[in-house]
Amino acid sequence: MSEKTATTAESDEEPTVGTVYLIGSGPGDPELMTVKATRLLETCDVVLHDKLPGPKIIDSLPEDAEDVGKRAGGERTSQAEINQRLVELAREGKDVARLKGGDPFVFGRGGEEAEYLADHGVSFEVVPAVTSAIAAPAVAGIPVTHRDHASSVSFVTGHEDPTKEESAVDWGALAATGGTIVVLMGVGRLPGYTAALLEAGMNAETPVALIERGTWPGQRVATGTLETIVDARDEADISPPAVTVIGDVAATRERVLEFLGNEYDGEPAEFEV
Amino acid sequence: MSEKTATTAESDEEPTVGTVYLIGSGPGDPELMTVKATRLLETCDVVLHDKLPGPKIIDSLPEDAEDVGKRAGGERTSQAEINQRLVELAREGKDVARLKGGDPFVFGRGGEEAEYLADHGVSFEVVPAVTSAIAAPAVAGIPVTHRDHASSVSFVTGHEDPTKEESAVDWGALAATGGTIVVLMGVGRLPGYTAALLEAGMNAETPVALIERGTWPGQRVATGTLETIVDARDEADISPPAVTVIGDVAATRERVLEFLGNEYDGEPAEFEV
Ligand SMILES: C[S@@+](CC[C@H](N)C(=O)[O-])C[C@H]1O[C@@H](n2cnc3c(N)ncnc32)[C@H](O)[C@@H]1O
Ligand SMILES: C[S@@+](CC[C@H](N)C(=O)[O-])C[C@H]1O[C@@H](n2cnc3c(N)ncnc32)[C@H](O)[C@@H]1O
Repeated sequence: MSEKTATTAESDEEPTVGTVYLIGSGPGDPELMTVKATRLLETCDVVLHDKLPGPKIIDSLPEDAEDVGKRAGGERTSQAEINQRLVELAREGKDVARLKGGDPFVFGRGGEEAEYLADHGVSFEVVPAVTSAIAAPAVAGIPVTHRDHASSVSFVTGHEDPTKEESAVDWGALAATGGTIVVLMGVGRLPGYTAALLEAGMNAETPVALIERGTWPGQRVATGTLETIVDARDEADISPPAVTVIGDVAATRERVLEFLGNEYDGEPAEFEV
Repeated sequence: MSEKTATTAESDEEPTVGTVYLIGSGPGDPELMTVKATRLLETCDVVLHDKLPGPKIIDSLPEDAEDVGKRAGGERTSQAEINQRLVELAREGKDVARLKGGDPFVFGRGGEEAEYLADHGVSFEVVPAVTSAIAAPAVAGIPVTHRDHASSVSFVTGHEDPTKEESAVDWGALAATGGTIVVLMGVGRLPGYTAALLEAGMNAETPVALIERGTWPGQRVATGTLETIVDARDEADISPPAVTVIGDVAATRERVLEFLGNEYDGEPAEFEV
């Protein structure tokens, strides 16, 4: 139908195709959105978002924003459907704000959406954002790199089964980098990959922190070591979204906690991701 | 002197110590600053910055902002002097905006400043930002992770000599992760670490991109493979600040370039970092 609209324009002019903006919302605090993201959310014709931007940002979106991360009544919108919807809206001549949690190109499938748009002749613009992989540790007092402790930091998905033969993640290699490891989507499989890292020879005393809902109302932090963090997770009942920070930098939190001015703690909002 | 000011307050009240905000400027486009950063730059009593925020953001700072990255007439301000200055200003009761390029905790020595402040009883708040390690590739059409190509991404400093025995960076381990590698401060030593990666068995055809001055006026990109990128760098005369993206994701640029809407290209500003 949108194809039709686009090709039967009444004038001889090229039918106008809108632009899709692949926008990151940052970790959740509305003030950690970029100036550009806030501008585009106001000026675009339509907003498509999922749940990860969190309660505060989602509450501030226009009434008619399309929630493609909805769970009520069953399934989330599939990635294929989202891709098609973006093309459809653009071909109707609309500028589309496609809002994603954190940065759109960090485990956000923004790359796939960009390729799909390009393949279908739709212009897009990426609006980079503050990733939770850096910001959630930061507001908890943890720098992901440190001159004395970490010359590299790796972001990795914890979603894959570390015992699976074909697992694309090489935990041994990550351990061997000697740098900080930040795991996203890694609450459920924490036992699997901490075991894999220990097996790869990583020191059992390596500090580990879990940061849940970083910068959201009700942010929580659990700390421990590679050996104790699974118990700490269970005790605090940490649930997604959360990032796991593994490495000496995780100990910085204790050293600075007293003077850490961020106030993201408070009553957790009822909000299902 | 500031010690004295702080302890000889005329009233009986506790002398007021200001707060230091460790603020990231993002990669350089003023619209990619966070809402919080722009607010704090207006409300803080004093701004301390270096050169990395780039020409546009630095031009917009208040007249009396202190440039601690100055080179004219010799040395940059040392890290020890910066640390002391932050404590001194806070003890004068000032709220200080300490503005850094990119994110303050990604190779920005923000962790050291945080620890120094805590050690000296000065409250601080971290204001995370968009890092150039993600944003410079993104606006050039390169997602640092991708469902089909990269389950992890590592940020690493290229500053260390890869032939040095005590080099803290294990290029072999980084290659073995199979994920994307983004090198910061890695223009000069590009020959050294590309050789180290090849020696570690990384495919010579691995796509590589250099993004210079990402989101600045005059952004430039050079592309090649692990084998050809040094020549590409020389031909294009790429100079710092630039990030190196190594991995299959670097090839995404060619696939989406025609529909990539970012317009950061233009006349490079005369600006020394
Ligand atoms: C599909 S990934 C998307 C990451 C996102 N693009 C980013 O840059 O933050 C989802 C994962 O991001 C992490 N995450 C996102 N927002 C978070 C937050 N506010 N606090 C902690 N973790 C968060 C969690 O690990 C979650 O499982
Ligand atoms: C000391 S590190 C600081 C990194 C910064 N904290 C960040 O998160 O982007 C300096 C390096 O960052 C990279 N960099 C910073 N801004 C950049 C930009 N706009 N374009 C490309 N690279 C940049 C370059 O590799 C540069 O050598």
